Amino acid sequence: MASDSDDLRMQARGGGSLLLAWQLQDKRVLIVGGGEVASQRIESILVADGYITLLCPEKGLHPRTRRFIEERADRITHYDRRFTGPAELHKMDLVLTAIDDVNRSREICELCRKAKIPVNVADIPDSCDFYFGSQILDLPLQVMVSTNGNGPRMASLIKTRLENALSGTEGKALKKVGVLRAQLKERAPGTGGPVGRKRMKWMSTLCNSWEMEDFSLLDDAMIKRLLDEGWEKNHVPTFEDVGGKHPPGAKVPQARGTQMTTSLLLPSAIGFIAGALCTTWMFVSWRR
Amino acid sequence: MASDSDDLRMQARGGGSLLLAWQLQDKRVLIVGGGEVASQRIESILVADGYITLLCPEKGLHPRTRRFIEERADRITHYDRRFTGPAELHKMDLVLTAIDDVNRSREICELCRKAKIPVNVADIPDSCDFYFGSQILDLPLQVMVSTNGNGPRMASLIKTRLENALSGTEGKALKKVGVLRAQLKERAPGTGGPVGRKRMKWMSTLCNSWEMEDFSLLDDAMIKRLLDEGWEKNHVPTFEDVGGKHPPGAKVPQARGTQMTTSLLLPSAIGFIAGALCTTWMFVSWRR
Repeated sequence: MASDSDDLRMQARGGGSLLLAWQLQDKRVLIVGGGEVASQRIESILVADGYITLLCPEKGLHPRTRRFIEERADRITHYDRRFTGPAELHKMDLVLTAIDDVNRSREICELCRKAKIPVNVADIPDSCDFYFGSQILDLPLQVMVSTNGNGPRMASLIKTRLENALSGTEGKALKKVGVLRAQLKERAPGTGGPVGRKRMKWMSTLCNSWEMEDFSLLDDAMIKRLLDEGWEKNHVPTFEDVGGKHPPGAKVPQARGTQMTTSLLLPSAIGFIAGALCTTWMFVSWRR
Repeated sequence: MASDSDDLRMQARGGGSLLLAWQLQDKRVLIVGGGEVASQRIESILVADGYITLLCPEKGLHPRTRRFIEERADRITHYDRRFTGPAELHKMDLVLTAIDDVNRSREICELCRKAKIPVNVADIPDSCDFYFGSQILDLPLQVMVSTNGNGPRMASLIKTRLENALSGTEGKALKKVGVLRAQLKERAPGTGGPVGRKRMKWMSTLCNSWEMEDFSLLDDAMIKRLLDEGWEKNHVPTFEDVGGKHPPGAKVPQARGTQMTTSLLLPSAIGFIAGALCTTWMFVSWRR
């Protein structure tokens, strides 16, 4: 039987985008323009390990673009000129333009579509195969907020809301989980099958029972103990079992419910004591 | 001068993806396979208003896939057969496969790469031009969490953390802001220039001074007042100025600090009263 939520999901909703994590390892990206927007694009491409060909006359370079060119010569090839024609697209996997010339932008877009190269033209939605969103970056964690064109300011406000919900150690925790998964796969290799399922179940139970912050505190010795005393014995140890210690003064992460209780308990207790003291004082004064 | 944060940003980081909001309005997507994963893909494509060609023998269809085929015949064309060869890719803009046959999957991937069609092959990262992430959907708001392959369970835990930070009215608020922006653009048309800048500044001031929840409560009359009494007079009214009322019993959105104070006040007061009552009872019992 289908549930109500299923019914909702079946409805024609639309109006959204297909959010994707595009893979650019060692792919070639052409960036036309070198201003501020281009400098943001460069950063996004470097995060994804792409190679950049940058077309922009020297005088049009934003200071940040200039620094990227100087410091990331391993990834960026800069040509001190404008876009010259279709030959620029040769062997390109992705094209991003960020120039003021609308006609030139549209022309580049047309060339890309003919060559079947995905293209984004800054400020001209019609000429975009994809849009960028507001992003939280804590590698390997990446979060994108897309408002589907309903206000960039709102995207940034929602991004702030989401950022406030993160502890800032999620990226580090993910990295450690990645190391753990890789070492586990070395001990118990193979894709799918009973071993794959057992691996998945153990990892999933571990992720569900530990606090995310605990993972960020894992070191090599603890990962080894986790595998020796946990995986090998088909058991999921606690963070403390493998020698984990929360740094002094650190807020011990708690489940939402527990946090709520604690945060209600303390003011209630203080209120109770204050109420008792005031009443005692009143009775004592009154009896005199 | 470059700041420290700039220095950090310049460093070779890498290891990430390029997060994108891919545009699929009326584009054609080929989905090979009809199981559970395929049904998730179908939903993602419908959200983005794409047309789907689905290849899967009748007996391989997941119940949800079957329902999508029945209820979204306007968008989905289903063929009761497997993938037959390169001709299937004709005029396709995107290809997603979710079948168990690894060799067939790799073969489809190769064909797509030759035809320069972006492709995702479920469970074979090498054969993917892009990955999917864990998603929060409150259209037009979309949020994607990508862990760059470091654990799907962690992605879902982080997604829950982010979901808890949202009020659930952000999508509605965005929709209303979109309507407001469109009507503003009708009153003061033109791209860029002084009008464009004035429009942007007014919208930005408004977004910064109102609570996000207020926007979700806007109706047509309020939007008209906002433009008549706000935009036309170069002024940013408050939510109450344009007739806004928070529904009775609704949590009035508050700044973080205020919320904290309120949440401490109530338990303290209850504690105080309880303490006073208990002490009174003690004194009264003791005097008898």
